[in-house]
Amino acid sequence: MRILIAGGDGFCGWPTVLYFSQRGHEVAVLDNLVRRQWDEELGSNSLTPIASIEDRLAAWRETSGKEVKLYLGDLTEYDFVDRVLREFQPEAIVHYGEQRSAPYSMIDRNHAVFTQVNNVVGTLNILYAMKDIVPDCHLIKLGTMGEYGTPNIDIEEGYLEVHHKGRVDVLPYPKQPFSMYHLSKVHDSHNIMFACKSWGIRATDLNQGVVYGLWTDETKQSESLYNRVDYDGVFGTALNRFCIQAAVGHDLTVYGKGGQTRAFLDIRDTLQCVELAALNPADQGEFRVFNQFTEQFSVLELAERVQRVAEDMGLAANIAHLNNPRVEKEEHYYNAIHTKLMDLGLKPHLLSDELIKDLIETAERYQDRVNLRVIAPTATWR
Amino acid sequence: MRILIAGGDGFCGWPTVLYFSQRGHEVAVLDNLVRRQWDEELGSNSLTPIASIEDRLAAWRETSGKEVKLYLGDLTEYDFVDRVLREFQPEAIVHYGEQRSAPYSMIDRNHAVFTQVNNVVGTLNILYAMKDIVPDCHLIKLGTMGEYGTPNIDIEEGYLEVHHKGRVDVLPYPKQPFSMYHLSKVHDSHNIMFACKSWGIRATDLNQGVVYGLWTDETKQSESLYNRVDYDGVFGTALNRFCIQAAVGHDLTVYGKGGQTRAFLDIRDTLQCVELAALNPADQGEFRVFNQFTEQFSVLELAERVQRVAEDMGLAANIAHLNNPRVEKEEHYYNAIHTKLMDLGLKPHLLSDELIKDLIETAERYQDRVNLRVIAPTATWR
Repeated sequence: MRILIAGGDGFCGWPTVLYFSQRGHEVAVLDNLVRRQWDEELGSNSLTPIASIEDRLAAWRETSGKEVKLYLGDLTEYDFVDRVLREFQPEAIVHYGEQRSAPYSMIDRNHAVFTQVNNVVGTLNILYAMKDIVPDCHLIKLGTMGEYGTPNIDIEEGYLEVHHKGRVDVLPYPKQPFSMYHLSKVHDSHNIMFACKSWGIRATDLNQGVVYGLWTDETKQSESLYNRVDYDGVFGTALNRFCIQAAVGHDLTVYGKGGQTRAFLDIRDTLQCVELAALNPADQGEFRVFNQFTEQFSVLELAERVQRVAEDMGLAANIAHLNNPRVEKEEHYYNAIHTKLMDLGLKPHLLSDELIKDLIETAERYQDRVNLRVIAPTATWR
Repeated sequence: MRILIAGGDGFCGWPTVLYFSQRGHEVAVLDNLVRRQWDEELGSNSLTPIASIEDRLAAWRETSGKEVKLYLGDLTEYDFVDRVLREFQPEAIVHYGEQRSAPYSMIDRNHAVFTQVNNVVGTLNILYAMKDIVPDCHLIKLGTMGEYGTPNIDIEEGYLEVHHKGRVDVLPYPKQPFSMYHLSKVHDSHNIMFACKSWGIRATDLNQGVVYGLWTDETKQSESLYNRVDYDGVFGTALNRFCIQAAVGHDLTVYGKGGQTRAFLDIRDTLQCVELAALNPADQGEFRVFNQFTEQFSVLELAERVQRVAEDMGLAANIAHLNNPRVEKEEHYYNAIHTKLMDLGLKPHLLSDELIKDLIETAERYQDRVNLRVIAPTATWR
């Protein structure tokens, strides 16, 4: 399959590139490398050393004998998107190419506007280019479980059958997103749904949970193939951040009570899910939504689990309840359905103490790279 | 009350300016006059001659003795928005300042991207400026009934009580918007809801139906105060467009079967509704949604009604069913609730044959201004 991976230099994108290439697909990376600039902006960095995209692809060529095309440019520039689609003629587009940090979007007005314009316009450009150039192509779009918020009823997969005053309809599931970033994904979802209905685009919206882990079979083959992993207060996410905090002797930073329950998955399952979506494409005109995660945890549960594993390793990990910088419920009902990807054959890697231990050990190995000053949350929701 | 009217030079905005000024409020207009440029772009024009904004305000000063401030600039430029709010310190902002035509947003990719960026960024800028400068100010935002689409259940006012698997919650009403323009309003609604919850902004989202009519007590006082009225395929809306078509001997252009049912209201009721919202502001942190219309009609019903009135006037009006340029259901269930504004005291002007007759007569009076070439629909949804 000819598969274009937008955002193919990022945390989810890079392992996806290698995974599809390894399995014999013809893969191209599209990226503007802006994630690396945000590190500069924030004074943060990946825990692991990461090679340049050119060196990554050269290393992969050497390791696997496989060629991956590279398109450097910005999705918000239509001429570029148009050129890439005409040249590569993708059968599937995996779209990770967005600003994906909630705290980054909440830094200030500029970052909020940037996040929404960047994400919405990039996705609109992909949709228009697909319509004109590759109308049969399948869009696999990364959304987020954070689009749903924390409703007091079960979270279904994209749609909800509503019985109301004696009538019934199946409607898009109502969204109550958590941040300016999550809002951008809700905007995308509505735009894509409209493009499917109006133009017959086929699309799968993957509402992904919080991704943890780092290593995949491909990324661990050589240091030039290593994936990035973020531990800072802006791009670092729960679990990965806790493991790194434990390794460097930093408090595990839980925001507020920690009763916030979220959906999680191992990065290896991200790859499986995207592959399952690609191999089982949506129908023409179908806007298909999968909830992409394997387990639910509260933030405090995860911190306590990391604390326990760290203590078994001889590390004293203290849990600090920070004033919550976010506006969110700290105790709430949460039950999200996630059967559609299981039905397609997903075999979950459930969270294990071994993975936590491995993450802590990786962090110990690279602890000289950790900048302790960027761990505390800076952006506030208020 | 100090009330800022964004988009105060437009079809709904201008009569709103005069209405509030007449009633003794301190009014300021914010506008970038881009609506007049779109006339140039499309080769279209208002049926009625319209004075420049400077002449409009001078005429109003002369007629009423009342002063209205003018801020010329663009909502997407934050420095401008910041300056206006600091200087004028509004207690309410009525926000009409968006690109409001569905066909315009569907002309091509450029127009779609422009519409979404313009509307979303303008509204984000207002929200951020309110938070920083006038946190107690009430945002009265014009949304549209077209955000809801045509669900097979009743359309409630903004929220829906959902019973699901033995649990219950009140959730944002699911949206299935009709066009890139309607999508921009859905994005706005989500952004505003988030700002209310996170920052305590008070906001009323007025999901307005299709507005018909032209004259208000204030706009008919002199030709320099006349309101604009659009008859072209891009900005002209059903009913107003039918009346003008009847006057100039053009077929009444019904798209497809004409079974599309929509919500409608008289422009005089727009003013009443906005006034009711302003005098009864939302609470701090409340995102309040009203469905702002008075009656539902199918497009064909309206065409037939105009045809009948035109025939009584001795005009032969033929109804032409054009191939529908839009992707929409032409027969569907439609029942939208609209009690909240009635409860606040709205006294509807229901559609009358007299109003239709008056619109046709106005169109006859200005028929030399009508450019027949711009009446047919040009933008297509497909």
